[in-house]
Order: sequence, then C-alpha cells, then structure tokens
Amino acid sequence: MQQSTLVRLKENLELKSPILVVGLPGVGLVGKLVAEHLVDELGAEKIMEVYSPHFPPQVLINKDCTVRPVSNTIYHGKVNENDVLFLVGDHQSTTSQGHYELCSLYLDIAEELKVPRIYTLGGYPTGKLTYEDTVLGVANSTKLIEELKKYGVEFRESEPSGGIVGASGLLVAFSGMRGIDAACLMGMTPGYLMDPKSAQSLLKVLCNIFGIEVNTDSLKKKAEEMENILEKLKEKEEQQNYPEIKPTDEDLRYIG
Amino acid sequence: MQQSTLVRLKENLELKSPILVVGLPGVGLVGKLVAEHLVDELGAEKIMEVYSPHFPPQVLINKDCTVRPVSNTIYHGKVNENDVLFLVGDHQSTTSQGHYELCSLYLDIAEELKVPRIYTLGGYPTGKLTYEDTVLGVANSTKLIEELKKYGVEFRESEPSGGIVGASGLLVAFSGMRGIDAACLMGMTPGYLMDPKSAQSLLKVLCNIFGIEVNTDSLKKKAEEMENILEKLKEKEEQQNYPEIKPTDEDLRYIG
Amino acid sequence: MQQSTLVRLKENLELKSPILVVGLPGVGLVGKLVAEHLVDELGAEKIMEVYSPHFPPQVLINKDCTVRPVSNTIYHGKVNENDVLFLVGDHQSTTSQGHYELCSLYLDIAEELKVPRIYTLGGYPTGKLTYEDTVLGVANSTKLIEELKKYGVEFRESEPSGGIVGASGLLVAFSGMRGIDAACLMGMTPGYLMDPKSAQSLLKVLCNIFGIEVNTDSLKKKAEEMENILEKLKEKEEQQNYPEIKPTDEDLRYIG
Amino acid sequence: MQQSTLVRLKENLELKSPILVVGLPGVGLVGKLVAEHLVDELGAEKIMEVYSPHFPPQVLINKDCTVRPVSNTIYHGKVNENDVLFLVGDHQSTTSQGHYELCSLYLDIAEELKVPRIYTLGGYPTGKLTYEDTVLGVANSTKLIEELKKYGVEFRESEPSGGIVGASGLLVAFSGMRGIDAACLMGMTPGYLMDPKSAQSLLKVLCNIFGIEVNTDSLKKKAEEMENILEKLKEKEEQQNYPEIKPTDEDLRYIG
Repeated sequence: MQQSTLVRLKENLELKSPILVVGLPGVGLVGKLVAEHLVDELGAEKIMEVYSPHFPPQVLINKDCTVRPVSNTIYHGKVNENDVLFLVGDHQSTTSQGHYELCSLYLDIAEELKVPRIYTLGGYPTGKLTYEDTVLGVANSTKLIEELKKYGVEFRESEPSGGIVGASGLLVAFSGMRGIDAACLMGMTPGYLMDPKSAQSLLKVLCNIFGIEVNTDSLKKKAEEMENILEKLKEKEEQQNYPEIKPTDEDLRYIG
Repeated sequence: MQQSTLVRLKENLELKSPILVVGLPGVGLVGKLVAEHLVDELGAEKIMEVYSPHFPPQVLINKDCTVRPVSNTIYHGKVNENDVLFLVGDHQSTTSQGHYELCSLYLDIAEELKVPRIYTLGGYPTGKLTYEDTVLGVANSTKLIEELKKYGVEFRESEPSGGIVGASGLLVAFSGMRGIDAACLMGMTPGYLMDPKSAQSLLKVLCNIFGIEVNTDSLKKKAEEMENILEKLKEKEEQQNYPEIKPTDEDLRYIG
Repeated sequence: MQQSTLVRLKENLELKSPILVVGLPGVGLVGKLVAEHLVDELGAEKIMEVYSPHFPPQVLINKDCTVRPVSNTIYHGKVNENDVLFLVGDHQSTTSQGHYELCSLYLDIAEELKVPRIYTLGGYPTGKLTYEDTVLGVANSTKLIEELKKYGVEFRESEPSGGIVGASGLLVAFSGMRGIDAACLMGMTPGYLMDPKSAQSLLKVLCNIFGIEVNTDSLKKKAEEMENILEKLKEKEEQQNYPEIKPTDEDLRYIG
Repeated sequence: MQQSTLVRLKENLELKSPILVVGLPGVGLVGKLVAEHLVDELGAEKIMEVYSPHFPPQVLINKDCTVRPVSNTIYHGKVNENDVLFLVGDHQSTTSQGHYELCSLYLDIAEELKVPRIYTLGGYPTGKLTYEDTVLGVANSTKLIEELKKYGVEFRESEPSGGIVGASGLLVAFSGMRGIDAACLMGMTPGYLMDPKSAQSLLKVLCNIFGIEVNTDSLKKKAEEMENILEKLKEKEEQQNYPEIKPTDEDLRYIG
C-alpha cells in the first residue's frame, strides 16, 4: 500500500529546539482553532505538507476554483525569538492504521528537527451545553504535569476516563519513547459544535506557557456567532422535553 | 498487499505531448459517457489495461460468454493530428487508499508519456430534476482557468463547496506536483440517473476545446430514452407532495 | 501486511499436465459439494495448504477436540491415469483485496505445476424454488466454449448478467493472461440453501468432461435431506402470499 | 503499512523452557482476569511490550494523568522454580488481518524463547445466566488432550461448534506448525458481563496443572460484586416475559 508522503517546501531549515504545537481537527475543533489562530497571528510560514492515502480521497476547492488535496501542514513561526512549529490540517486519518502511521511520521519529523517538547491541542467533550473555562491536561511525564499546573492546566485523576482517540493522544504517548516531552491540553467543550469560546480558554493557557499575548479578535467574533447558535439550541431545549441535539461534525469522533 | 497491475498492450508507443482525457464512472455517469463516446467516434485504440485489488473482486461477462476482469483502460486516438489518450473503466477504486494508489499510477503513466495536460470529466449533482446546460470547472492553475473560460466552462467561487471525491479530483490536485496542467470539467446533472443529456453539454464544451466536431447521434438516442424516464419521474413528483426519488446508481457516491 | 502462506505437504511432486478443479464455498455450496465429493471418491491426497490473513481469524474444531485454522487445500488425484488437482476450502477471502491476492497465489501454483486447464465450479442463483437440471458456463476463450457445449454445458448470451463475484470468476478471467484455459461451470440453484441436487447435475457434466463415472450415493442422500427441507419451504410458500425465505448461508454473497 | 512493534524491556533473558500463558480480553474477560491475577500473585515482571496499528488508535490515562498507548504485554514469573510467561493486554486486534499478524509475532517470540507449551485462556459463552463450574478445552494434539483431562479439563466432541475467534484459537492452531504444544482452556460463562466467578474455576484448573495454589481473594471480591449485578439481572428476567439483556462488552465478539 502507498505510504503517506512528506513534501518539504523549504530547504536548509535551521531551527533551534523548536516546540511543536499540534492542532488537528477534533472535538469542537478546539485544537484546530487555536493552532490556526496562532499560525495567523504569528505569521508562521508553511514548511512541510503531508499527503496520505489515509485521508479521504477528496480534494478541496479554493475560492478561485483551484483545487488542493486534503493535507496536514507544518508551519514555522517565532515566539519570543524561539522557534515554534505548528502541525495543522484538514483531516485526521480515516483509518486506525493511518493514525499510527501518521503519528509515527510526525514523530520522525520531530526527532529530525530536534523537537524537545510537543503540545497537542484538543477539546474535551462535556456533553453539557454550559460553558466551562477549564483546560484539562494529560502528559507523558509527571515532571511535565507539575510544570503545567503552574500555568493553570488542570489534571484530574484518570481523566479522560475513556482515554484519548486520535493523533492528540498517540503523539503524547509515543513521544516518550523518542525522548520527547509531550502533553495534551484540552479545552472543555459541549462538543456538539465548533467551539471558539473553548478555543479562547485554551489559547490563554498556551499563551501563558509561551509567555506571550496575542490578539484574539477573530476568535472572539467566531465565538459570538457560535454563541448565538448555542442560544438557539438552548431555547429549543427548553421548549422540548427531549432535546435532540445531534453532533453535526464528523470530527466529533476524535476526542482531542 | 498486492499492487495494482499495468498491462501494456502495445510496445514502442511514440506519442507527441498527448492530452489525457479521464472519464471514469461517477455522478450520472456523465464523464464515462463522454469519454467512451469519443473513444468510439475517434476509433481510439486500446493501449493499456489496469487491474487492481481495489476494484470489486468481480468479473464481467461478454456477449459471447467469455469473461473479463473489472479494469480501467487507456485508449489512444488522434484529434486533428494530435495524440489524445482516454482513461475509461468499469469502476473506480472501492477503497480510499486505492483511490490514492490508482491516481498515483495514472500520473506515473502520464509523466512517462509526457502528458502536458489532463481533463477529468465528471458530473456535478444539482439534486434538482430540471436540466441545466452548464459545464462547471475547477483546475490546478488560475492560468488554465482563464483559458477554459473562453470555451464556455463556468467557474463558480469555491464550488463544488463539498470538494470533489474520487479520481477526477485527485488527478487534478496531484498533477500540479508533477508539472502537469489539469482541470476537472463537470456537467450539471440531477445526479439520480445516467445522464446522456448532461454528457452532450459536456461533450460540446470538450469538442470546443479540441476544435473538433463529432457525431452525437448515439448520445442523443440515449438521452431521449432517459428523458422518457425522467418525464415519468416528474409526473410522479407532481402527483406526490413528497417525492421519493432515490439514487439508483452506486456511482453516485463519486462527485465528478 | 502479512501475506497468505502456502504450506507444501509433499516434496518432489511429479505431475503431468494436471487439470485443476476449483470448488470453494459459494452459492448453494454447489462447487464445494462437487469438488469435495470427487476428492472423496477418487481418494485424492492432500498436497498443499493455504492459510491467509484474508480468511476469518478463526479456528475450527475437529471431532476429537483438536483444532485447525481456516484454510484452503489442494488435493491430488488420478482420473483415467491423468493427474487432477482439487482446490477446496473452508472459506473464500473476506476482503476484496484478499480475493485478488489468493487468486494470484493459486495461479502461481497452477503455472508452477504446468496446469493447462482450470474448471472452477459454482452455483448460479435462480432465485426460484423450482429445480433446473442445467449447467451454465463462461470461459476465457471461445474455443473452450465450443468444446464444453459438446458435454452439455449451456452458454447464455451475456449471462450471468451481474458478472461473477469471488474466486470462481477471477481465476477464469486472470488465467487467460497466464496462458491457461479456464471455464466456470455453474449448477442452477435456488441459492437459498445448500443444494446437493444441483451439485449432482454439475457433477454429471464434469464426469462427462473427464469421461468417468463416480458413485453419487452420498450426494443423493444429502439431496434427499435437502429436498425434504425444500418441500417444507414450498408448503410455506403456498400458505403465504408473500413468502419470506431468506438466505441462511453467508456464502450466498459469492456468485459462483 | 506499519508493522506491529515489539519493545524489549530486558536484555539477556535467560529462560528455561518457559510455559506461555495467554490471557487477552475475550468473552466475560475470563482469560484476562485469570492471567492478570497470576501476574499479580506471582509478582511477575514486565519484559516486553507490543504496540500495533491493529489496536484502536487510542491512549489510556493512568491515575496520575500520564498516558500509555494501548498495548499487549509479556510478563515473566516463576512457578515452582519454573519459568512462566504471561501475555496479557488492553485489546485484541481490531482487524482480521491484525489477528493473524499479531499471532505470528507472538509465536515468533515463543520460538525465540523456546516455549514448549502454550495455554490460551478464554471464556465459553453459554448464553444462560446460570453458573457452570466447568472448564472446556481444545488442543493441538490428542496427546495433550489426554494429559489435560487428568487435571479436570473437559473435552466435548466438536465443541465449540462455531470454532474459536481471535488470538486464543489462532495461537493454538498455528503453534502446532512451530512444534509447540498448545491448548485453549475456556471457563463457562453467561458471557454478558465480566465474569470473575468463571475466572475462579479456570484459575483452579490452571493451578492444578501448575501444581500450585494461589490466593484468590481479589477474584472472590470481584465475583461477589458481579454476583450482585447478576442477581439484579435475574430479578429483572423474572419480572419480564422477554428479558432484554444485551451484551455490554465489545469483547463479546471474541470467543475465547
């Protein structure tokens, strides 16, 4: 079977211990929203593209009617003079095996670029419509857990109890075997809809960790739009005894 | 796992910058109808066959009770002294991974034969029973888009909004990385049934591009037959408040 | 991924142009019944076993509580001094790709053993409960078709119209590319239940071809048992306006 | 596709003809309960870990919020001065092909470590809510069957009639080809819920075979908890004419 393909868009990358931030599609699109927001705000530059037979066999249409394959992309930006990489994308793998293969490819890249630490970003589905300003974490070492607590990340015994499905979890678990520190940071989210509000909470914690501040206007605007939708859903819930709010995003099957 | 197999039926092919036209089964069978019609009208010659474990594990029965495996086939014809290749076939891949593998194989062949341009043909499902004489396009360069507009291809911002699934899309998106110009041309079609009328519209635009005229009698005859069926469906729709016309062709899952 | 495994049980096989008879599970188990009957009657000897990750991940329990993996098996027997091979088995592939891989493996073996001709045996589902004493055929050459007509095999234009799914079809279609003559012989069968009566018709034609006679007592006994069941089904049909006889064997998904 | 990965946690293992006991998740979790109980009671040491793209793409969360990938693990313990290995784990393969691949990997390890005998442990689903103190067996030789009868293992002609699905069966069937004796020992269990009572029966027989006694307090405690649940299910059954007790554990699809 065809392997996933890595396309390098820049030669002679000279990075100094870059932190890798992973924001792939998942519950409430929380991780994706945060990572893409940072890519925009920091003016990060596209350095690698990944294509995979484990993505849907689909192309996406740009505004000008040119097409592009479904892909995952790595951007390079600077945070306080430090190199930071962002892994974002249209889709996660559609197959179990693909999750493992892509995760392995991403960790190969991380090793090659001497990444010392990975933060994977995701959403933690609460199943409730009420909002919680909490960022939950898991990590691959207790030392890292202690460090992250200082920045406001909450760690709850054995949670998420169902584990974490998809790239956010696998990258944290397998990076330990490569000598890379890694944590998964999850914004609490109802999980039914794209959640830019939860993304704001997660972004705040991540900026805390990085010691930076970024403009969050675009996220705030998205959050307002979604809040209107959420408001309508709540009204509907009050009118009905058995609300039927169904997940509308296939990305819901990823936790994290 | 077993790879797809390319069988070369002719040695010492000497082709001069052949255009590749792809008409595999898809929505309304529009692309397949057009490409097979041209193969017939131009008397194109079979030069390659592709077998794949990603096709259904099935054989088809000829009129004389001999059998043949499900395959994709490449024909070679001449249009105004220029070489043209046609990729047609019984099926697209039944798996996501197979779409990527076969697409990669077809682009290898295109590179080997120094194909400078690819047109993939397909149908664009409108979901309506009324007929539209429009051919919609996407391409892998804005330059090609401008060129195709002159021949009556319509380009609508960000459309198809759901992207394009299957070979028609992947071939256009990935041919850019191989230095090959490519566009997907889609006839508008209700999408529920084989649509030789939409195929006629698409054929007209393609003949425009090639600067040729071809006899379309067989397509017209098929179109008349289908129109009768469509007429009956419409009558049914008028009688019922909630018509229940369901897709009858599995090819519907391909857009394009 | 793990490949299918061929285990050779006998060294230094000296076979002279052996005919290969294939009777794997399929519609009405017709092909399997015939091939296994001949293995028994001719006292054929087990010479090869095939294990595959494309078979169900299952073991079968012998009468004495020892276990054996799901497998396909090749037997060697003699018919009028001529070598004959029988390919029989517990299951066909559970995946599309596996059908292609196993078919390719079987044709490799056929080439190695210099098999000049293959007969694949199967059932042709009529969907009716009435019995037909017909054996339908398809082949990979018109010459073979003419030859088989003499032995009472019937060939109907373009039939089976839905093609043939599974090993019986693939082996016939792909053996042509290896220079091996091949035909698929199908007993007509309602297709709902194991059909030893249809197997008897098919066996008769096959014995005709081989110029032999074999004892058919065990098949007759099985046929009588099944006829009783069929009788009950017919009674049920007469009592009801809309009989609901459902396929009870998963092998029904194979035609042939 | 990515292969399964074996991680060796200890170098220079010097084992003397270690028996391998396999207790992976299956019906009633019977085999897993027994093997993990022995690992605890014997203070067995983790020596190998197996990761596989055929496991769910998921990580599990430890109590302290560190994460670990889904894995299978091999432990080494001592029983009366003899080396014993235990293969336990979070999951079996999620794919058919993975079952074959992992089974092959485990038998490679067994060969490397010169394992002379394998006991796979599982549950035999009775479908009844009443308890049976029976341990059923199958094996890869009649000699081993005779030996095991002495320890109270019951062998019933051709049972389980549906065969055994998953690692417990495949390991027994394929170990014969590697010259390794193997038996599958199954505790009778309703099969609907985790069944520590059946595990106790199976543990007793296994300890019999090993000639040891182990503390079973923790299993007894779990059994009491489950019995309360079972009691409630029975009450429910008595109240209703058509009880609807559905399997609650996905592991039910494994027999053994």
